[in-house]
Amino acid sequence: MRRGERFLAACRGEAVDRTPVWLMRQAGRYLPEYRAIRARHSLLDICGDPELATEVTLQPLRLFELDAAIVFADILLPLVPMGARLEFAAGEGPLIHNPVRSPADVPRLLEVDPRRDLAHVLRTVERVAARLEGLPLIGFAGAPFTLASYLVEGGPSRHHARTKTFLLRHPAAWHDLMARLAAVTGAYLRAQVEAGASAVQMFDSWVGALSPTDYERHVLPYSRLAIEEARASGAPVLHFGTNTAGFLELMHSAGADVLGIDWRVRLDDAWTRLGPDARLQGNLDPVALLGPVEEAEARAHAVLEQAGGRRGHVFNLGHGILPETPPENVRAVVDAVHAVGLPHADMARAR
Amino acid sequence: MRRGERFLAACRGEAVDRTPVWLMRQAGRYLPEYRAIRARHSLLDICGDPELATEVTLQPLRLFELDAAIVFADILLPLVPMGARLEFAAGEGPLIHNPVRSPADVPRLLEVDPRRDLAHVLRTVERVAARLEGLPLIGFAGAPFTLASYLVEGGPSRHHARTKTFLLRHPAAWHDLMARLAAVTGAYLRAQVEAGASAVQMFDSWVGALSPTDYERHVLPYSRLAIEEARASGAPVLHFGTNTAGFLELMHSAGADVLGIDWRVRLDDAWTRLGPDARLQGNLDPVALLGPVEEAEARAHAVLEQAGGRRGHVFNLGHGILPETPPENVRAVVDAVHAVGLPHADMARAR
Repeated sequence: MRRGERFLAACRGEAVDRTPVWLMRQAGRYLPEYRAIRARHSLLDICGDPELATEVTLQPLRLFELDAAIVFADILLPLVPMGARLEFAAGEGPLIHNPVRSPADVPRLLEVDPRRDLAHVLRTVERVAARLEGLPLIGFAGAPFTLASYLVEGGPSRHHARTKTFLLRHPAAWHDLMARLAAVTGAYLRAQVEAGASAVQMFDSWVGALSPTDYERHVLPYSRLAIEEARASGAPVLHFGTNTAGFLELMHSAGADVLGIDWRVRLDDAWTRLGPDARLQGNLDPVALLGPVEEAEARAHAVLEQAGGRRGHVFNLGHGILPETPPENVRAVVDAVHAVGLPHADMARAR
Repeated sequence: MRRGERFLAACRGEAVDRTPVWLMRQAGRYLPEYRAIRARHSLLDICGDPELATEVTLQPLRLFELDAAIVFADILLPLVPMGARLEFAAGEGPLIHNPVRSPADVPRLLEVDPRRDLAHVLRTVERVAARLEGLPLIGFAGAPFTLASYLVEGGPSRHHARTKTFLLRHPAAWHDLMARLAAVTGAYLRAQVEAGASAVQMFDSWVGALSPTDYERHVLPYSRLAIEEARASGAPVLHFGTNTAGFLELMHSAGADVLGIDWRVRLDDAWTRLGPDARLQGNLDPVALLGPVEEAEARAHAVLEQAGGRRGHVFNLGHGILPETPPENVRAVVDAVHAVGLPHADMARAR
């Protein structure tokens, strides 16, 4: 099996010769090569420049035997053409200077045509896809809830209290907001496939702030809409969240091809709950890459052991690589996954 | 049934006439009465002064029909006699100026005798207990992991990366640290019962940062030790954590009488997983108290509906009351729980 085939085969639940592996934030601050570029360009500048974004996307692929690339971008980019005044302030993370705080703010959001308004990302997708020589490229977008949380909070948040209060106080405006975000996310994911992405991931990083009931009523319908639109492209859709152990079944019912989970739930427990046909991505704790390399390898093996050679496993972290991660630990984990992939594939065939 | 009996009966899994309710941080910043005292005294001053701490403990009981009091203190207090230079910096939360960063820091921690070193808290427990006229008083302490995280990080943390890295790099020192913390926590909880507390709660607020495997290997044995020691007092032990939906069974096996869970897992799902004899505390999202009062009441009802009239339910939030909470919403929720308690008790008797 060629290296370029494993990831998409696993997304479709087909047998693979090795467990495919890519890592969230595989292009990013832990790499000296990336920091050298960031020293001269802002995050938004890199995202807006297809040449720079292509270079950054390709950096980890030159260093590690990854099974997929992921386009370098930011989940908040679609909020800019919607009218958000977005800034990445040093040390503070993203800030939105005109957050959505009242129902009247929602209809002021602008409609987005990704081909016109996010053309810079689509050009990066085209450029990267042309240079990957058969390796799959993953496009991505933020899920409606996580985008809504940034829009309402005006930045990262610990309790997401403003967002959840908005949902309680202004249910009609909340649903209007979520419908707009679902449309943008769905169209943007589809446009990335049309530009050359082989798969797309929808990041619902903060959705674990919700109760199962709130997720089901106020978020799931919009995640489902966005996923439906993305799947109409024909490419597999991956759907990722953290702190979702309380409502995996609901999130799975949103209809993505692959569900991405964090390390807070065992992969084997997740498969027991979702059934053997579920395809799962994850779920090594990113902190495991900060310790001794042998420990990182052992924990990667433990993830594969929980996967138990089942079809439809994409190895990944349970969240993005932390900036303080030593690149040699990334290499060790990627190689460790590929080294033990084969017996697991044999096990899967034997079943 | 007298108001003072419900909480302990529910902790023992006995039938009650109304679901007992208390709320984490029921004494705190959301109350104007508390803010008036805090305007003149620091948090550590209040905790160190049994008269002030007693007053603050009693404030919410004068306002709301709560079924238990909880002594006003802070989970980090035992770290001070252990040698931590603790400061509550305005707007930053707790800071520890001499964090545990290397294995050599662990044996430098001092042994703690709660009766000598935490006598101020025990005097508060005595004073409050004498004034409650039969209402139960809950004592509390931080669980070993959450205390370890504060000690290692030097304050609150998003990823707990230093703590988890310490555990990976220095397993022997980690286990030494956890054994010391388990001994302090167990002895401190027991001393609070001896001073007059009717029950104790162990807060493992940050334990949800861990994978099930890390919890089982590196935390559970020490939580179990502390709980055993606390239970030797004869009083019920409540054991609370957030983000624990992935390892409820493991946490339950630590042996507390009542398991406290957050809103990220449904109460009925938790009972299905843990069995009908499990006693559970929770689990309304504290943000539910920031919306319209009718919505707060409806969500309190939904929690009772998931509890389904089972024995062994203590109503609470899934985490502490947020400072921006309107006191009238607290009253509405407490009253709503008591208003619908009766039919549930009937249901329980009918089974």
